[in-house]
Amino acid sequence: MNAALSEPATVRLSLDEVYALTRDTLLAAGLGEPHAAAIARSITRAQADECHSHGLYRLLGYVASVRSGKAEREALPVLTRTTPVILNVDARHAFAPLAIETGVPALIEAAKTYGIAALAIHDCYHFSALWADIEPAVEAGLAAWCFTVGQCCVAPAGGTTPLMGTNPIAFGWPGPEGRPFIFDFATSAAARGEVELKRRAGEALPAGWAVGPDGTPTTDPAAALAGALLPFGGHKGSALALMVELIAGPLIGDLNSRQAKAVENGDSGPPLGGELFIAIDPAAFGRETLGQRMSDAEETFALAKAQPGVRLPSERRYAARARSAGGVLIPARLLQEIRALTTTGAEPGRNGGG
Amino acid sequence: MNAALSEPATVRLSLDEVYALTRDTLLAAGLGEPHAAAIARSITRAQADECHSHGLYRLLGYVASVRSGKAEREALPVLTRTTPVILNVDARHAFAPLAIETGVPALIEAAKTYGIAALAIHDCYHFSALWADIEPAVEAGLAAWCFTVGQCCVAPAGGTTPLMGTNPIAFGWPGPEGRPFIFDFATSAAARGEVELKRRAGEALPAGWAVGPDGTPTTDPAAALAGALLPFGGHKGSALALMVELIAGPLIGDLNSRQAKAVENGDSGPPLGGELFIAIDPAAFGRETLGQRMSDAEETFALAKAQPGVRLPSERRYAARARSAGGVLIPARLLQEIRALTTTGAEPGRNGGG
Repeated sequence: MNAALSEPATVRLSLDEVYALTRDTLLAAGLGEPHAAAIARSITRAQADECHSHGLYRLLGYVASVRSGKAEREALPVLTRTTPVILNVDARHAFAPLAIETGVPALIEAAKTYGIAALAIHDCYHFSALWADIEPAVEAGLAAWCFTVGQCCVAPAGGTTPLMGTNPIAFGWPGPEGRPFIFDFATSAAARGEVELKRRAGEALPAGWAVGPDGTPTTDPAAALAGALLPFGGHKGSALALMVELIAGPLIGDLNSRQAKAVENGDSGPPLGGELFIAIDPAAFGRETLGQRMSDAEETFALAKAQPGVRLPSERRYAARARSAGGVLIPARLLQEIRALTTTGAEPGRNGGG
Repeated sequence: MNAALSEPATVRLSLDEVYALTRDTLLAAGLGEPHAAAIARSITRAQADECHSHGLYRLLGYVASVRSGKAEREALPVLTRTTPVILNVDARHAFAPLAIETGVPALIEAAKTYGIAALAIHDCYHFSALWADIEPAVEAGLAAWCFTVGQCCVAPAGGTTPLMGTNPIAFGWPGPEGRPFIFDFATSAAARGEVELKRRAGEALPAGWAVGPDGTPTTDPAAALAGALLPFGGHKGSALALMVELIAGPLIGDLNSRQAKAVENGDSGPPLGGELFIAIDPAAFGRETLGQRMSDAEETFALAKAQPGVRLPSERRYAARARSAGGVLIPARLLQEIRALTTTGAEPGRNGGG
């Protein structure tokens, strides 16, 4: 066996090690401790659920945006209330996780008190998974949504020019035993990262994902990235993508995807923008009937799962979460890249600083 | 030219005539005047927008449910507030339009005062178009959603057995000059009515709409109606259909699609259930920036429409509405059927009454 073959393809880390590696790497890059800790919590949760795109892989982009000076390093989020049920967190051009941790407990309290509430996160660099953003509210017993504007690369159905972001939607319904039903998907046919992975792997795209720069349908990932992705589900998915472009942009007073692209510095980190949360307390529609209503919902889930071929959105993540108590497998190459960040890029403010 | 060929295929009615025909037919069937007038307003608006499925055609089903005794004839809706932002209208087993007219002004007021509010319509027979249900709130300057559970005939993605309704979603964004952006679509690949129309026309369904009773994909409308429709957009559309099943059902304390089917008398009228509205006031996120934010949204719409092949959801309806000032064309056969209702079925309570 030669040296190359004996190198491990993956390395097992405990969740504590994932957390410490993330936090320490961000601190070494010059990020303030409250932000480094919040991002470490976010990345550790995604990695535990084997949501690899939002796990340790994201650390590369976070560090890039610390170094490029895009994200504020020390600015702490500020929570204000316009009304008892309209909450705003000004993230002050810093990363989103600390702002979300600041706003979501207030959202939960407002929704539990008044039945419905909305929370807008403003001027943040958002790089986390929406399912994780709403999970605390859903675990607290609320039905909740969140929406954010993604990278501008999606044409409306029938069109050929990027107008909208990948614009994900997440919804959660409180479930028994801390296992709520949560879905989270891009309103584009595929996330931009999926297309990039196909390009690196030299694979063709499924039909219907994209058009090339000439506006004709393409299965070539490079042509798709130079052209436009398409919404999922034809004109219906396109309408939903446009809805997110509106409600996570001008509704709350944050950038739409074209505006975010215009101010983007191309450092491979997250774009600037906002995020809208809405939460409703099922108890507001009758506390005495709540148990029966939750049981009715569970019956629907059980009947879905009883059909061969049907899987509920969160099931794969919960299975991964159970496995991850014993540690998670990280690609050795990714770990090398992350460790190289600390040895080569520890100087805060290398590219100008925040 | 023989007599059959000289019969007109369509008859032009003024909108006032559509309103009067609807109201008078319902009164003759025994429905109370407030309900007859509210339904006449609802049907006239749909007919004016050439939304034929929810126009005069719906009158047949409404009358059937008056005659069968399913819908209460005189019961007036009752509005209550659980909190300042959670509104409930008990429709008391009557038709939805009067309950919606009772609740939506209160929803508008609550959303304008507090920034966000929810309205649940309970125990109603819902037969109207969701775009029309939210239009008054959107015309009042609010972003608004509504959701209701449709007829139970949709299998989850990957499955083969009906578990969910056609579960439509509507969303509206306030637009200039009383022409808001509103979409309204079933979360099934097609509405059940579209499949029935294909069956009558002897046409095959597009691939991906349905599975037959044996669980295999079918393009045969009869097999689809005996089997299950599929959600639009694969697992993403399926997740949205399930979301509507939850939030227009157990969240607000109304029936899910299976429960509604179990109590349905098969009279061809609407099913029993609830409807959830959510409204947000864009002004709640900053009154001084509102004009600029509305302009940003208009720019997005303009850029969408500038792409050849792209049409915004409401455009076709607004074009129809402008045309309809001069009257609407109604199939002569439909008019005959409606007029026959009054001459043959004027006895209130023929089948037991409400």
